[in-house]
Amino acid sequence: MGELAGHLRAAVKGNPEIRIEGVGSLEDACPGQLSFISDKKYLSLLSQTKASALIVSPALQDIDFPLLVCKQPYLALARVGQLFVEPPFLPPGIHDSVCLGENIQLGEDVRVGPLVQIGNHSEIGRGTRIYGGAYIGAGVSLGQDCLIYPGVTILDGCRIGNRVTIHSGTVIGADGFGFAQDEEGHHVKIPQVGIVQIDDDVEIGANCTIDRATFGRTWVQRGTKIDNLVMLAHNVVVGEHSIIVSQVGISGSTRLGKHVILAGQVGVVGHIEIGDGVRIGAKAGVSRSIKAGQDVAGIPALPHREWLRVMGNLRRLPQYKDELMDLKKKIAELEASLHRE
Amino acid sequence: MGELAGHLRAAVKGNPEIRIEGVGSLEDACPGQLSFISDKKYLSLLSQTKASALIVSPALQDIDFPLLVCKQPYLALARVGQLFVEPPFLPPGIHDSVCLGENIQLGEDVRVGPLVQIGNHSEIGRGTRIYGGAYIGAGVSLGQDCLIYPGVTILDGCRIGNRVTIHSGTVIGADGFGFAQDEEGHHVKIPQVGIVQIDDDVEIGANCTIDRATFGRTWVQRGTKIDNLVMLAHNVVVGEHSIIVSQVGISGSTRLGKHVILAGQVGVVGHIEIGDGVRIGAKAGVSRSIKAGQDVAGIPALPHREWLRVMGNLRRLPQYKDELMDLKKKIAELEASLHRE
Amino acid sequence: MGELAGHLRAAVKGNPEIRIEGVGSLEDACPGQLSFISDKKYLSLLSQTKASALIVSPALQDIDFPLLVCKQPYLALARVGQLFVEPPFLPPGIHDSVCLGENIQLGEDVRVGPLVQIGNHSEIGRGTRIYGGAYIGAGVSLGQDCLIYPGVTILDGCRIGNRVTIHSGTVIGADGFGFAQDEEGHHVKIPQVGIVQIDDDVEIGANCTIDRATFGRTWVQRGTKIDNLVMLAHNVVVGEHSIIVSQVGISGSTRLGKHVILAGQVGVVGHIEIGDGVRIGAKAGVSRSIKAGQDVAGIPALPHREWLRVMGNLRRLPQYKDELMDLKKKIAELEASLHRE
Repeated sequence: MGELAGHLRAAVKGNPEIRIEGVGSLEDACPGQLSFISDKKYLSLLSQTKASALIVSPALQDIDFPLLVCKQPYLALARVGQLFVEPPFLPPGIHDSVCLGENIQLGEDVRVGPLVQIGNHSEIGRGTRIYGGAYIGAGVSLGQDCLIYPGVTILDGCRIGNRVTIHSGTVIGADGFGFAQDEEGHHVKIPQVGIVQIDDDVEIGANCTIDRATFGRTWVQRGTKIDNLVMLAHNVVVGEHSIIVSQVGISGSTRLGKHVILAGQVGVVGHIEIGDGVRIGAKAGVSRSIKAGQDVAGIPALPHREWLRVMGNLRRLPQYKDELMDLKKKIAELEASLHRE
Repeated sequence: MGELAGHLRAAVKGNPEIRIEGVGSLEDACPGQLSFISDKKYLSLLSQTKASALIVSPALQDIDFPLLVCKQPYLALARVGQLFVEPPFLPPGIHDSVCLGENIQLGEDVRVGPLVQIGNHSEIGRGTRIYGGAYIGAGVSLGQDCLIYPGVTILDGCRIGNRVTIHSGTVIGADGFGFAQDEEGHHVKIPQVGIVQIDDDVEIGANCTIDRATFGRTWVQRGTKIDNLVMLAHNVVVGEHSIIVSQVGISGSTRLGKHVILAGQVGVVGHIEIGDGVRIGAKAGVSRSIKAGQDVAGIPALPHREWLRVMGNLRRLPQYKDELMDLKKKIAELEASLHRE
Repeated sequence: MGELAGHLRAAVKGNPEIRIEGVGSLEDACPGQLSFISDKKYLSLLSQTKASALIVSPALQDIDFPLLVCKQPYLALARVGQLFVEPPFLPPGIHDSVCLGENIQLGEDVRVGPLVQIGNHSEIGRGTRIYGGAYIGAGVSLGQDCLIYPGVTILDGCRIGNRVTIHSGTVIGADGFGFAQDEEGHHVKIPQVGIVQIDDDVEIGANCTIDRATFGRTWVQRGTKIDNLVMLAHNVVVGEHSIIVSQVGISGSTRLGKHVILAGQVGVVGHIEIGDGVRIGAKAGVSRSIKAGQDVAGIPALPHREWLRVMGNLRRLPQYKDELMDLKKKIAELEASLHRE
């Protein structure tokens, strides 16, 4: 535990010789595991836990239990997880049932599960794991130490960086949605010949769709994390270290800056710019570019404070209406009484 | 038909000896099939139907046709379906192309289609069918008489009850979306080491994502039915016999009670409680806990009646604005005329 | 280039003998490729392009570059794409790893990639390509020259026309979501025994779900284009040449006319009719039938102009509220002053 404390820059309370071999919740942790407690209201669970030590914030440092005290317990928990939590088991080597194309380059210790297929001329970097049933197209480049979960589809020509995780059912590089109307109102497909580029340390959830560019690339930059069922259209660019929560949709050619946060079910129109550090509230509908640093919410999206004021008033709208009718009546009376004079 | 009437607690009108072997719509039913008619406006279709008998409500019991008359014709239709409609054909046994891990326990009459894979130490209960191309991870427990459709992914350690149906493309047990920010604004993954537990008689639609818990379990309780493209985040609990319609998203650690109904495209924030019997209108955005028995709608969600009043007034907002401007003018005139006196 | 100009009904400016062999963006095009420029603001890119010629609108016909000038440059681009852009490579024939059922009819030049499965009694038309890992159920009919991308699932009995493209992860023919409640509030499944019918020249994006009908068919008519993550429920009908953008959900038995456009994240309730040529704005919630030719927006959806007026006023609601309070005060003063007299 002492060693761990050094790694986490945490203070130890209790025996620094306690051996920590994993991490778990108060309810589920086994002896030898580190757990955490984030709020006083969970203190009652403490008597039953089998965990050997706890991560806590300084506010809880007086608990009578072996502790690692640090300012950001969640961050500490995440870092402990990095140390102890292994990706799902996959035996070394390439499973017999895998269908490999021609001229594929596999780095050292690449592991490929059953019923995977990899197309011609693709490259898979050292230490990358491709779980059962994933589909890697032709001319795909996958970096080092990636985790490609069961049932992921990465289509031809897409480029994936290092330490990228892609969860099951996600489709990288389907055609962008682009059609031109002819004289009879029929939709003629515009060629979608670009690629998708995913940079280092990106994580993408399950059943997402990230479409290939019409020309050029759809691009998710370094360190960005994407939740499930998210749609990124052709030529979208998502800047570094952004967060995109579940069921968000971003239309074609829109560019997001760095450290942007989009909450669940947000929709963003095409061809706009979302500045660095912008935060967009759940379910918002964004139809115009947003400058760096702003918080917005609502459909159509307004600055967050303005939106709160509008929503507060919206709820009182029936009451305002009654008051308006009341005033109308009073004014009529006033006018009548003045007339009489 | 007489036997069927007993089963459905329906009254027979016509020959109880008519042999019923299936179910179909008025347009499509073959001779020997039972059909139904729910409204007088469809009576015109009656002359062309080849169905041998109809399920009707008491309101339509005077139709001149062999009838099963019962109070809840849709329920009767569902029960007839249970008797006659078979799951899609799958030959007995395990297809030659299946990739099995080590130490797998298969119950009696388990059927597994082509190109399925099942990981180490998993258990499949008696009578369960796993259709082609599904992925069952390691340490998975699947109960009896389940239907796992083509292309379903069930990841390591998840536990599925009896008579559970999961439709194609759905991903059970992808990592929850949890990150802690470090000092440089980079997102560090919080370990997601819990599981998903699906209880008996649950049905889950196509292309859904139900994430594994951070610790502990994400839990869908008995008898709940989930439509397509639904997202349940880590540690969500959905109570018994609930209904979740398509494209709903529920954020982490939120708990739904029993008999809850969420209409299409609803979004629910994390860490709240939705009481038993709550019904939430389509597209609502729920940001606070809701007590049992309430109906809510809107973004942010309001009690349903209040929301209807607000929406009714919202549409008249431009008119209120005109009236407000009008009153303003009149008051200015009144003030001026009083001043003049 | 002269030949191409004839095909596109475009005017050539420059040498009509230039040989065109492909299409690319200004930045990416190689020599021999045709590019395009849609707006004067991109003229600065012209000095660096390696493209051999450009498609432009008449407004840009004075550019000093080999040009194809035509009224609808995007349409021309689309048509050039049809000529030059090939579908992803798939070798001729049926891959060794494919699992075929009994009595399957394969047309001429059908190509089937690795680890595909095709169920009993299915028919695949001439020139159709089924990419790796797709699942074709039993009794499926697939027309000519279709593109079925990796990981598509087409379930039993569905009928797909000619020149249909279906992108990865899409599920055609999962069960519709229909349940009847019994006396104890349990949900009893209503049989879903209909099919999905997709007509000629339809394109469907990635990770969509188009459910089979309860009885009869769910039906997408000729020439309609559907983006990613779209949900069409049982018995929905989408008319010809319509456009459905990403993350739209349409509930059961609703019928859309021809040339309808639904923008992203729209939700439509069940059992209504959307007339020909209707356009529905992003994120709208449609709860009533809409007559042909209307544009609507908002939740609940209003005629587009009315919605714009309402939204304009909504934002000013806090200001109206202040004015209302102000008037209230003034009227009280007026009343008091009249009383005093």
